[in-house]
Amino acid sequence: MTTYTAIKLAKRPSAKDIGPNLFEVAQLEKPSPAAGEFLIKQSYMSLDPAMLGWMSADTESYIPRVEIGEVMRSFGYAEVVESQHPDFAVGDKVTGMFGLTEYAISKGQGVNKVDANLPAEMVLSIFALPGLTATQGLYRVGKPKAGETLVVTGAAGSVGSIVGQLAKAEGLRVIGVAGGQEKCDWIVNELGFDGAIDYKADGIKENLEALTPDGIDVYFENTGGPIQHHVFERMNAHGRIAVCGMIADYLAETPAPGPNWMNLLRKRLTVQGFTMPDHFHETVELLEILTPHVKAGKIKYRAHILEGLESAMTGLNLFFSGENKGKLIVKL
Amino acid sequence: MTTYTAIKLAKRPSAKDIGPNLFEVAQLEKPSPAAGEFLIKQSYMSLDPAMLGWMSADTESYIPRVEIGEVMRSFGYAEVVESQHPDFAVGDKVTGMFGLTEYAISKGQGVNKVDANLPAEMVLSIFALPGLTATQGLYRVGKPKAGETLVVTGAAGSVGSIVGQLAKAEGLRVIGVAGGQEKCDWIVNELGFDGAIDYKADGIKENLEALTPDGIDVYFENTGGPIQHHVFERMNAHGRIAVCGMIADYLAETPAPGPNWMNLLRKRLTVQGFTMPDHFHETVELLEILTPHVKAGKIKYRAHILEGLESAMTGLNLFFSGENKGKLIVKL
Repeated sequence: MTTYTAIKLAKRPSAKDIGPNLFEVAQLEKPSPAAGEFLIKQSYMSLDPAMLGWMSADTESYIPRVEIGEVMRSFGYAEVVESQHPDFAVGDKVTGMFGLTEYAISKGQGVNKVDANLPAEMVLSIFALPGLTATQGLYRVGKPKAGETLVVTGAAGSVGSIVGQLAKAEGLRVIGVAGGQEKCDWIVNELGFDGAIDYKADGIKENLEALTPDGIDVYFENTGGPIQHHVFERMNAHGRIAVCGMIADYLAETPAPGPNWMNLLRKRLTVQGFTMPDHFHETVELLEILTPHVKAGKIKYRAHILEGLESAMTGLNLFFSGENKGKLIVKL
Repeated sequence: MTTYTAIKLAKRPSAKDIGPNLFEVAQLEKPSPAAGEFLIKQSYMSLDPAMLGWMSADTESYIPRVEIGEVMRSFGYAEVVESQHPDFAVGDKVTGMFGLTEYAISKGQGVNKVDANLPAEMVLSIFALPGLTATQGLYRVGKPKAGETLVVTGAAGSVGSIVGQLAKAEGLRVIGVAGGQEKCDWIVNELGFDGAIDYKADGIKENLEALTPDGIDVYFENTGGPIQHHVFERMNAHGRIAVCGMIADYLAETPAPGPNWMNLLRKRLTVQGFTMPDHFHETVELLEILTPHVKAGKIKYRAHILEGLESAMTGLNLFFSGENKGKLIVKL
């Protein structure tokens, strides 16, 4: 009998501290696939802000929460190592919700085969949740038009960096909000954004005004926080706001007040929250929009690689501290 | 030479007090229509919350503000009394933006001929701004489905009362928020709403919970105020919010905070502000939706009639005090 390692949820988060104390490292017996199943060995696990929601006690969330004692849910890149399934062969490279684990049994639900020539880091950074989320929010909610101005928060993050690059490719003026000079430099110098605002520095309102002389038409919200009110104030008539994340408030005991709705009325704004589980069935259509931009070399990414399964337990907290630089990926 | 009376804007409002001190009563010389023009004599003037916006100094508003010294803009019902216009004959009954005045010259822009058999009060209460606004907001933004629950604030007002009745006709559960027992009784007993909440009474949160056991799918917002947060909290996944008015905040120096966007994300809500000038070109389509319900006897109204041109100057303040009972109309 051989065993493998997995990380189970042991406790629900109650403050802005997602650390190892919430998890339990377990040694599990390696299973064999039954008929219609296959066994995968995971090589890369994606850490995503959505995981914070799945861990919380909130039963109103958009997909079922992870129960205490379950292997923590996560998305990853793996290879099929044993198969009793007609559509998956040993050696296939696949992505899916395998969880924080070395091995997993699957029946194929939600599992996609991927081009073995693409680097795993690129698959997880672009052709998985980040790219699908950016595409859905930008195109379906933001409805960008060439010549408009877009502001994206969390601009150096996995989703925000793709949103900004797609918007640039569509001919928009793009201003990113990020934490710290290094991230601001990266989105302007490497990704080609038209400007960056460091939300940790002074003068965010003045900087925003200087960088958006024609106001703001599309606002892609990943973070919440005080910048939200300033962006909201500068929205143009018929502006669109895609609410994708509110990391600043995920675990706040008293969430910060939102903007008053007078401006929403006066400017005839549309504010729409969206989450990807509603749109997974549209993956093919979203990839049809995204892929040509990637092939044209318009979408750069950087992966922030953590080493070893157990690093996932400390890695999640980087979303709150804003210390991650690029797509958080755990390499097994 | 004969003269007529009109009311000009003399001063901009600066607090929640819209009274005679903001206006000036003027005697003007009665003009004669030139070629391509006609003269109307107004018999009924509509008072609408939108007028508060047109008076304010805010230059970001959706249609041009009224300048100091101009006749105050308003919508009304009139008869053509002299005509040099090929399409308008003496005796035609018309509606249009004639202003707070006994007489006006028009070239026909934005003027519609109306069925002389319909009472003027019904024309102004249903087939003018209130009915068009209710129809646009409910159908185009609210997208109601039979079996869903709708909450409308300002439910006894000119727009809210039509919204609720249309939603009932479409098979929704309809809860209205209004000020005072008399209005609450009216919307339930006369208009057929499923329930009413008196926002001036205690326990609005508990009353809302009791009256919306299945949550809320469509929220038609006319007022703002504390009830907004309670309704927002009870929205169901994929709920739609039409923001039509924010009377509680129109003239507030410090507008009240809005709801945090976490729920907007978690429930994938859409919040959309709208104003009718964007949709006047769709009047025919909107009337095609509204008219069958009126003909089927589904839409009752009540007009709150003020007597005499000058009563308009005190009448507008009734929107803030909430003392109007039904559509505010000035009879000349």
